[in-house]
Amino acid sequence: MNAQRLDPIVGAIEAGGTKFVCAIGSGPCELLLERTQFPTGDDPERMMQTVTSWFSAQEGKHGTMAGLGVASFGPVDLDEQSPTYGFITTTPKPGWRNADIVGPLRRAFSGLPIGFDTDVNGAALGEARWGTALGLEDFVYVTVGTGIGGGGMARGHLLHGLGHPEMGHMGLPRIPGDDFEGACPFHGRCWEGLCSGPAIAKRTGVSAEQLPHDHPAWELTIRYMAHALANLTYVLSPRRIIVGGSVRKGGQLGEEQFFARLRTAFREVLSGYISSPALSENGIAEFIVPPQLGDDAGVCGAIALAHSKLQAPTLHETKKPS
Amino acid sequence: MNAQRLDPIVGAIEAGGTKFVCAIGSGPCELLLERTQFPTGDDPERMMQTVTSWFSAQEGKHGTMAGLGVASFGPVDLDEQSPTYGFITTTPKPGWRNADIVGPLRRAFSGLPIGFDTDVNGAALGEARWGTALGLEDFVYVTVGTGIGGGGMARGHLLHGLGHPEMGHMGLPRIPGDDFEGACPFHGRCWEGLCSGPAIAKRTGVSAEQLPHDHPAWELTIRYMAHALANLTYVLSPRRIIVGGSVRKGGQLGEEQFFARLRTAFREVLSGYISSPALSENGIAEFIVPPQLGDDAGVCGAIALAHSKLQAPTLHETKKPS
Repeated sequence: MNAQRLDPIVGAIEAGGTKFVCAIGSGPCELLLERTQFPTGDDPERMMQTVTSWFSAQEGKHGTMAGLGVASFGPVDLDEQSPTYGFITTTPKPGWRNADIVGPLRRAFSGLPIGFDTDVNGAALGEARWGTALGLEDFVYVTVGTGIGGGGMARGHLLHGLGHPEMGHMGLPRIPGDDFEGACPFHGRCWEGLCSGPAIAKRTGVSAEQLPHDHPAWELTIRYMAHALANLTYVLSPRRIIVGGSVRKGGQLGEEQFFARLRTAFREVLSGYISSPALSENGIAEFIVPPQLGDDAGVCGAIALAHSKLQAPTLHETKKPS
Repeated sequence: MNAQRLDPIVGAIEAGGTKFVCAIGSGPCELLLERTQFPTGDDPERMMQTVTSWFSAQEGKHGTMAGLGVASFGPVDLDEQSPTYGFITTTPKPGWRNADIVGPLRRAFSGLPIGFDTDVNGAALGEARWGTALGLEDFVYVTVGTGIGGGGMARGHLLHGLGHPEMGHMGLPRIPGDDFEGACPFHGRCWEGLCSGPAIAKRTGVSAEQLPHDHPAWELTIRYMAHALANLTYVLSPRRIIVGGSVRKGGQLGEEQFFARLRTAFREVLSGYISSPALSENGIAEFIVPPQLGDDAGVCGAIALAHSKLQAPTLHETKKPS
């Protein structure tokens, strides 16, 4: 960790579909001064009131925040020219469709710089600043949990465009003999429909956490994951793929086994097509990795998003080329 | 076209698997002063001699070139620190494995700035400078012909990373009832193995150009193309996808029909998941488009690659944000 103690103290919100993690601080570990969480529920207005009250109370203890960062579940509107900038848009989550996230924060903390991005781009930025993507200009961060999302950087910039990536919805080859219809309400057997926590539960009747280590669904999940990471490699040519989220912990299989088998399956899918030391038998353990910030990647990412909105030249989102 | 007459005259090589197109000029159309082509053959050394002789002769007529740009088939080594920078690396094309492209040019034109990138990143840069990607910071350029390749820009920078994208090798969902084993020697049924010209010929026994307009292989090709473009959209969130190459001309079906059906199929694959005017029934004709520079995209891209290596501040690869 190379966190700088001189970075200003900011507020951070990791807005997830299950819980909102709120924190105040300037970086990971001991730089995270306070941290709490609230169940997401189905009432965005009440949630945003809870959140703003908590931050107001923290300002009483720690002084005025220099900025706020929000790393949110999505889809979100990131177009600053749009009337719904800072909203969660078409989510199927009850109550949260077209929920305004940035608006209530702006009204409660007038004039405060607010950084807003997807949860995965936030986590990517956190890993770029303090974690395993330090010094990398081109990498992908994916989270595999209740849903699957992906973000990252290309040439030192967070991936944006028409909107933000929706990597979890890419289509994958069917593994021979697998007739599972998938769990995505939009696409059935997309990556999320095959490998998310709910997809594993739908396929097996057992949660990923409880699934026995020798259940054949692990092999299928890992092989579909390998196809997905191969597709990301073909499209983006990243220098590293960070895999976060609960499913990567591998349940009864364990995180180490999950990653070891994922790396092997990934190399099988590539079939030697891309020749690079990073993708060799020796290099692959540094290419497909868990987040270094662990479960703090999201909230640290929100801190980094806040910092990216401040004016100080050292705090820009873009790092110097490695 | 907003080509600037004051741009310096450079040499351009579109190095393809079938032919090398060489040109000298400063941009598209009337700014392309001379142009010729040579069959690629199986002897890279002889080809590079032919090419350097041609450029030397052109310098006699048009004066010294300010730079050279090469947009090459691949895979290529783009790492300037690598001993094989500027080489074509693991291609299956007879004779061209580990062929040095930049080296012979450096030796023939000592001190001349040389831009080198993939054919598709070159074409993307050409379209960004003079074509349909003008003003766009985030877009994809794919070519579907003898092979399938993809490049483009994210946040105004050409897509690079560990190496360069290899989009043609992404895996796609199987369309029910389609048992074709694919044509890719590495992956069988990857995008290239399903939709390239040779894949269509292997599937039908007829070339894409000759394939009757009502042959069911067109529907399959278009539907796999739609899955591939959807995956690109999910991963990169581009503002536009440019589809070049010979297959996009649609053979007996025609280019207009090919694009119309591709756009419809693409929207079906997305299933309304991403809500954006650009992806609506009205917007889609501006989202999936042929290259504006047509068959000159590659050689114009090589000119743009040369310009990107020159020092003048207006000639940088990165355009100002739109």
